[in-house]
Amino acid sequence: MRYELYYWTGIQGRGEFVRLALEDAGAAYTDVARVKGDHAIMPFLRGERPGALPFAPPFLRAGRQVIAQTANILAFLAPRHGLVPASATGQVYAMQLQQTVSDIVAEVHDTHHPISVEEYYEEQRAEARKRAAAFCTQRMPKYLGYFEQVLERGDGQHAIGRKHSYVDLSLFQLMSGLDYAFPNTMKGLRRRTARLRALHDRVAARPNISAYLASDRRIPFNEDGIFRHYPELDEC
Amino acid sequence: MRYELYYWTGIQGRGEFVRLALEDAGAAYTDVARVKGDHAIMPFLRGERPGALPFAPPFLRAGRQVIAQTANILAFLAPRHGLVPASATGQVYAMQLQQTVSDIVAEVHDTHHPISVEEYYEEQRAEARKRAAAFCTQRMPKYLGYFEQVLERGDGQHAIGRKHSYVDLSLFQLMSGLDYAFPNTMKGLRRRTARLRALHDRVAARPNISAYLASDRRIPFNEDGIFRHYPELDEC
Repeated sequence: MRYELYYWTGIQGRGEFVRLALEDAGAAYTDVARVKGDHAIMPFLRGERPGALPFAPPFLRAGRQVIAQTANILAFLAPRHGLVPASATGQVYAMQLQQTVSDIVAEVHDTHHPISVEEYYEEQRAEARKRAAAFCTQRMPKYLGYFEQVLERGDGQHAIGRKHSYVDLSLFQLMSGLDYAFPNTMKGLRRRTARLRALHDRVAARPNISAYLASDRRIPFNEDGIFRHYPELDEC
Repeated sequence: MRYELYYWTGIQGRGEFVRLALEDAGAAYTDVARVKGDHAIMPFLRGERPGALPFAPPFLRAGRQVIAQTANILAFLAPRHGLVPASATGQVYAMQLQQTVSDIVAEVHDTHHPISVEEYYEEQRAEARKRAAAFCTQRMPKYLGYFEQVLERGDGQHAIGRKHSYVDLSLFQLMSGLDYAFPNTMKGLRRRTARLRALHDRVAARPNISAYLASDRRIPFNEDGIFRHYPELDEC
């Protein structure tokens, strides 16, 4: 079966977590909006297509099934492609960790949009500076410290037990995005994120991921996505 | 098996979504911190207990398993207590909707804490007014409009198919919380939320829920929780 991924063109965004899983698995998929344009997303959001109603992209079409919410899409795909342990306990833990990734991703987004998603960054710059300062000094160390502890509790290298999983792919993306958006803050956290750095490098070297990152399917980070590099937000 | 729920005392918070499922199911559970105090939560957060490591409460202990993240706890409990359809597709859709509830709940929280969770509301009041205005005029209508459409797509009364599920309980809690925090805005949305209102009343009348709401196990809404009534944030 060929999957259809629906996500806005031009940014990695939340869609990237799904892309990484599909690419790592070597799954056949079409990145629909990149072929047909963003307008292909709209009929689903307007409820003109059968199946589950998505609130927002990303969503995935798998046969007749439509699945939205990043963590939910990953939990659906993972057991089909060996990207999560077979045990129910392992799958529940993976989902827990992925939802925590979703939480920090939402907080990253709010560093440049602390007031309204409907307004430009430039219109909420003063508030963004304050929010980003709190994020860099309090939240980022807390989340990354947590994920370090998660790795420590496993075999030191993988989030879940001793096996590669979609959570590792998501932690790779999280580290990549934070490195892009907050290079200074991440430099300051380097010694406290040794396991996450090693995981990042291991995932980047996986054959399918390495090929993907070198391809034009990997959209570069930019200032329209979630992870944005505004130097003034990285001054802690 | 007797479940153990771990959540901060004194507030409904995210723990309430789990309480509602346990109460509706008539499941045996101990609300641990309300018996032993908030300090009972700490060893889990410090990684001193076996099992999955929680980032934050709520988390649930079920035998030897520890499960965190609200939507994840609900997805774990629901099939054990008839609170979700048996079909895989139904369970995936339920999880999608619950994660969308989590998203709006996080946005509700940010209306009174748009800058930092580590600081008091009073220290971020000016930013809170702006964020709340955007929430009330843009985000709340968008989310509630979405959930109305979800009900419309089902049988008009239930989120998933024709059966009561944990998502209905969560939508009840969402409506209750928004009514408490933003009574003016919710009044303005009354005509556009007819199905959600009917669902709210139906859930409130379920015998176990009605008994729970009348008990002292239901902590009243207050200004320490997620849904807070600050009149100045409800002026749209």
